Amino acid sequence: MSLIPPLNFHNLLFLMASYAVGVDLGGTNLKAALVDRDTGIIERAECPTEADQGPKHVADQIAAIVVEMMDAAPSSPVQGIGIGAPGAVNWERTTVSKPPNFEDWTSVNLRSALQTRLDTSLPVIVENDANVAALGSAFYGAGQDPDSFIMVTLGTGVGGGIIYQNKIFRGSTGGAAEIGHMTIDYEGPFAKSGVSGAIEGYLGQEFLTDHARDRLINYPDSAVRDLVDGNLDELSPRVLYEAATQGDDLAQDILAWAGHKLGCVLGSAINLLDIRTIVVGGGVSAAGDYILAPARDVLPRFVVPGLRDDLQIHQEELGNEVSLLGAARLAFEGEQAQVGSL
Amino acid sequence: MSLIPPLNFHNLLFLMASYAVGVDLGGTNLKAALVDRDTGIIERAECPTEADQGPKHVADQIAAIVVEMMDAAPSSPVQGIGIGAPGAVNWERTTVSKPPNFEDWTSVNLRSALQTRLDTSLPVIVENDANVAALGSAFYGAGQDPDSFIMVTLGTGVGGGIIYQNKIFRGSTGGAAEIGHMTIDYEGPFAKSGVSGAIEGYLGQEFLTDHARDRLINYPDSAVRDLVDGNLDELSPRVLYEAATQGDDLAQDILAWAGHKLGCVLGSAINLLDIRTIVVGGGVSAAGDYILAPARDVLPRFVVPGLRDDLQIHQEELGNEVSLLGAARLAFEGEQAQVGSL
Repeated sequence: MSLIPPLNFHNLLFLMASYAVGVDLGGTNLKAALVDRDTGIIERAECPTEADQGPKHVADQIAAIVVEMMDAAPSSPVQGIGIGAPGAVNWERTTVSKPPNFEDWTSVNLRSALQTRLDTSLPVIVENDANVAALGSAFYGAGQDPDSFIMVTLGTGVGGGIIYQNKIFRGSTGGAAEIGHMTIDYEGPFAKSGVSGAIEGYLGQEFLTDHARDRLINYPDSAVRDLVDGNLDELSPRVLYEAATQGDDLAQDILAWAGHKLGCVLGSAINLLDIRTIVVGGGVSAAGDYILAPARDVLPRFVVPGLRDDLQIHQEELGNEVSLLGAARLAFEGEQAQVGSL
Repeated sequence: MSLIPPLNFHNLLFLMASYAVGVDLGGTNLKAALVDRDTGIIERAECPTEADQGPKHVADQIAAIVVEMMDAAPSSPVQGIGIGAPGAVNWERTTVSKPPNFEDWTSVNLRSALQTRLDTSLPVIVENDANVAALGSAFYGAGQDPDSFIMVTLGTGVGGGIIYQNKIFRGSTGGAAEIGHMTIDYEGPFAKSGVSGAIEGYLGQEFLTDHARDRLINYPDSAVRDLVDGNLDELSPRVLYEAATQGDDLAQDILAWAGHKLGCVLGSAINLLDIRTIVVGGGVSAAGDYILAPARDVLPRFVVPGLRDDLQIHQEELGNEVSLLGAARLAFEGEQAQVGSL
């Protein structure tokens, strides 16, 4: 028997295995994954982001977790490193400016910070976290089928990413898809961005929780109270979701209220983009159809009749994994990604 | 002296002169122009659109006015024919569906209708009228400088066109940029599209006029009344503009009210697209700064802070000429335009 294995399809795939490291830089947690281009995540790591210790320390943290993932690659070395980051990312995809909740962080070139720390010339590509989630969804998740879709991430804030003809639509400076700051009521409540009636002022985690807390005053027997043992400081969208699954009327009603608002803003986005598939991700999207069914109901009423066919709202079932997958995907796309065409 | 003129720069330009016919198919008037690629409109014609006589008759009308323009070309024959049309235009840029106010018009392939009537294989390219206006502005008007801008046309309705990296952004099916149907108040008044709080329900000519008529009840001495000899059926945005220039408080206030609403919806569009230059055209835009100054004032308050730099709102000074110029431009772009890349 020969020691050289026969060249069949599976061996070829193994020989051609292609790896990249994806990083999800969050204000609370720093996550990383080793990603196989074909099969997805094969190794992951996570640690608290020590954002209060300044950008140099955070860059050290990123370098350390990236090295850990690179060392885990079973065969060929990794092709590159992709990073999803909050805040503004420049057109060249190197630099992150003013990420919320990061101390002393004005503008940091993460590409050179990483390349220096790792002593490598491997591609390091940085992109806005919501755009990265959209890219992950496009290649590995609910966004695989359509060549264009709008990603909405419901979390602490409301983020967005636009995939148009299989590429991230980046706008003029890399800052497109700020869906969370689109208004649905020009005299509505102010969101943290200062925009009156911005959708984030209804669906952002804190706003939604405040809304629920106020409405609970009229529902002394709601299951929501039991789930937090009467401590309304513990209220969260996840608690609302759990109460809703237990049949709690108020929780279902609050999530439907949120879904209705979501449908309104998605209508505006569809009118402008003529992109009719929506993928909803982020933590709050775990509430699934409690939010998405009402959004689907109202959506056509906020879209011009000529664009009302084939409207779809999908839940991203991969959850936060799309962020790691999308970040790695930045590296697989390589140079093409760096010039902003994807 | 030789009969052959010396080959200098100007002669070369003449030899290379490039013409196309641009058509603006409106519900009321049918306009056409012979356009020189470099110098703009050199000949034009106009007639009432006999939309009540059905699509075959309208196609005959278009063919006749196009022949008139083709015959006017001083040197080389025209390169092609571009048509800006209301209603939905298909991805292939051949067919117009359900244009408002055209009788018995479901779906008509204007390309083949024209090529048959003219017995020609010249390119005939059809595009949505607001997109055509944006293209005209991009090459001949206020949109020449930026490589990306959002065109808003304020007329009977509120239309939109997106120029992104010097190309029309067409969305998934050719229907993008329906700015007029984006909501700014999800519980606001219904526009004709059925969308609650759509900007067209505030700034569409009829809506704006109704609003003015109602407010006039409290202003018995307004100059607006004099301008229409007391016949409020004659009220129009143009009358409001004239009254405003005469210093009439109410007229100025109504136009400022409209501008404020415009600023709100433009903020939403900028958040989504990260395209920060706006060009405003269409008949109502003649009111200029009476509308645009309040829009500029409010705009930053509806844009996320990270995208607030370099916001600009320009008036399209070329007026309706951009529609004819943009239609001709479709033909200059030729095959490239036909595949939808511009």
